[in-house]
Amino acid sequence: MTGFASIAAFEAALADLREPDADAAADARVRQAELTKPAGSLGRLENLAIFFAGWQRRARPRIEHARAAIFAGNHGVTVHGVSAFPPSVTAQMVANFANGGAAINALSGAAGLELTVVALDLDRPTADFTVDAAMREEECLDALNRGAAVVEAGLDMLVLGEMGIGNSTAAAALCARSFAGGVAGWVGPGTGVDGHGVARKAEVIERALAFHGAAPRTAFETLRRVGGREIAAIAGAVLRARQLRVPVLLDGFICTSAIAPLAAENPAIVDHCIAGHCSAEPGHKRLLALLGLDPLLSLDMRLGEGSGAAVAANIVRSALAAHDRMATFAEAAVSASL
Amino acid sequence: MTGFASIAAFEAALADLREPDADAAADARVRQAELTKPAGSLGRLENLAIFFAGWQRRARPRIEHARAAIFAGNHGVTVHGVSAFPPSVTAQMVANFANGGAAINALSGAAGLELTVVALDLDRPTADFTVDAAMREEECLDALNRGAAVVEAGLDMLVLGEMGIGNSTAAAALCARSFAGGVAGWVGPGTGVDGHGVARKAEVIERALAFHGAAPRTAFETLRRVGGREIAAIAGAVLRARQLRVPVLLDGFICTSAIAPLAAENPAIVDHCIAGHCSAEPGHKRLLALLGLDPLLSLDMRLGEGSGAAVAANIVRSALAAHDRMATFAEAAVSASL
Repeated sequence: MTGFASIAAFEAALADLREPDADAAADARVRQAELTKPAGSLGRLENLAIFFAGWQRRARPRIEHARAAIFAGNHGVTVHGVSAFPPSVTAQMVANFANGGAAINALSGAAGLELTVVALDLDRPTADFTVDAAMREEECLDALNRGAAVVEAGLDMLVLGEMGIGNSTAAAALCARSFAGGVAGWVGPGTGVDGHGVARKAEVIERALAFHGAAPRTAFETLRRVGGREIAAIAGAVLRARQLRVPVLLDGFICTSAIAPLAAENPAIVDHCIAGHCSAEPGHKRLLALLGLDPLLSLDMRLGEGSGAAVAANIVRSALAAHDRMATFAEAAVSASL
Repeated sequence: MTGFASIAAFEAALADLREPDADAAADARVRQAELTKPAGSLGRLENLAIFFAGWQRRARPRIEHARAAIFAGNHGVTVHGVSAFPPSVTAQMVANFANGGAAINALSGAAGLELTVVALDLDRPTADFTVDAAMREEECLDALNRGAAVVEAGLDMLVLGEMGIGNSTAAAALCARSFAGGVAGWVGPGTGVDGHGVARKAEVIERALAFHGAAPRTAFETLRRVGGREIAAIAGAVLRARQLRVPVLLDGFICTSAIAPLAAENPAIVDHCIAGHCSAEPGHKRLLALLGLDPLLSLDMRLGEGSGAAVAANIVRSALAAHDRMATFAEAAVSASL
């Protein structure tokens, strides 16, 4: 069994998170101080090298086998007109992924990432979560395990992303149910609804939160009630990656929302995760701040599909290249200071 | 003659700047609107594709032949103790570049850039610019032309960087002489001097500005009086790139300071330039704002050597890959909206 045998196993895994290798991280930190540059002058590239050293458990981490895993799902909540695109676009875009024509095909190619696309029962949307749980227990557990299945031991980095018409509404619902503070700060234009659409999303989420208000607030229950299959799959992938100490590069608002209910239960879940970018979707900035994640990029992207994280993967490659290939002051006979 | 035959030729070139190809940029903009993504959802990646289309004069720009050109120079102003490193480190680092051990070797390699290092008369530092012009006229013109010489027609992108112990003092002097507002906002720790060192840098620059106060304020005279060979070379490369419509990726504070005196004379000089990143050196943020440049990255880097620009080159590659390889809505049979 490489995933979660039961809801209890998932919750137990979330309660018992592995740590990075402190020795490997310390060795990487020592190496950074010896490389031919003023101390600290590579900024976040240095932190990335030390982070990857800890999780990969080697002082000179590398990216030889990295995967972008993109999950797609359909959402019953689209009956309320929460998206600028029809639900049929989810399957059309999955076909576009298969044909190599989407942004993530180009961007994962440019970043040297192996692309895995997992379409989760697109012909069977989740239930309308304003009047029902989005998924039955076995459906949600299955989605978690479909996500866990894309992670194998020895993977150097996992880039996560999603596609699913309507899923910015599910993401906002997940955030609103995971954190205090109401709905308004979590809803935004998504793929491009106007102000009336945003108001409609907020109203739909208010109704959903009221409907599920008395239900348990475990990570699993929140994912199951107001999430979606592709979002649960991301949550499963993140948790499985932690078990295998595989560093994770998160994409935008929807991708990051998958760990909101997990972080509400165990904030340490973010420790093996890097925020690839800050999306233009307004809830993302707020979510990253609550999770304590500082995004690598802010390029006004808001596409999903793992697109921002795939671009950020190049930053990781640069960081590890500098860490691995630079000479030390001693090797290069460069004076370290006056 | 591929450079500037005289000071007058340099100033004339700066006064008569070429424009990008509006048709190619418009075609690229049309293509962006047809690609399988919500309109505008690739954010700055879309702008980069349109920018490169204009300067490369083709609707589907590409990066096949891109160069990182790093210029090194020594500075007489180091006699005043303005750096944390001895001047001998400039030549040691040039040797490190040649041996492949510096950050820029790793980072240009990771970004697929051809690396050209130009060491400018390292055994002959510029004069102490508190009591003399840093360079004689022929020396400054030679440095401009050494920079111009790294740019050839058909280059897809030029990444610029520098190395020179003491050159953050020259950069601050260039900015202070090019823009109103005094010295204080332009001085910072550079490679790592402490508060006393920063105060010493400010005092040195105040004296230099007073010494040269009555001299002409042309771009050439400012570069010659308070600049340095590697900085003048960057200015020459930027102007030559403009003549050849080669897009330029600028690095940090010192690299960007090379165009401060040019921009004071003709603000349009920045139009073919992209700010690769915002350095941790405090003057850089201020300089970018004055030049109207919005940096692609903010990773707390402050190394120079073109390191930040080389990392940013990956963002350009990603942008052009998405622009070139994505399918249109029509090609992929994806519904464009509800």
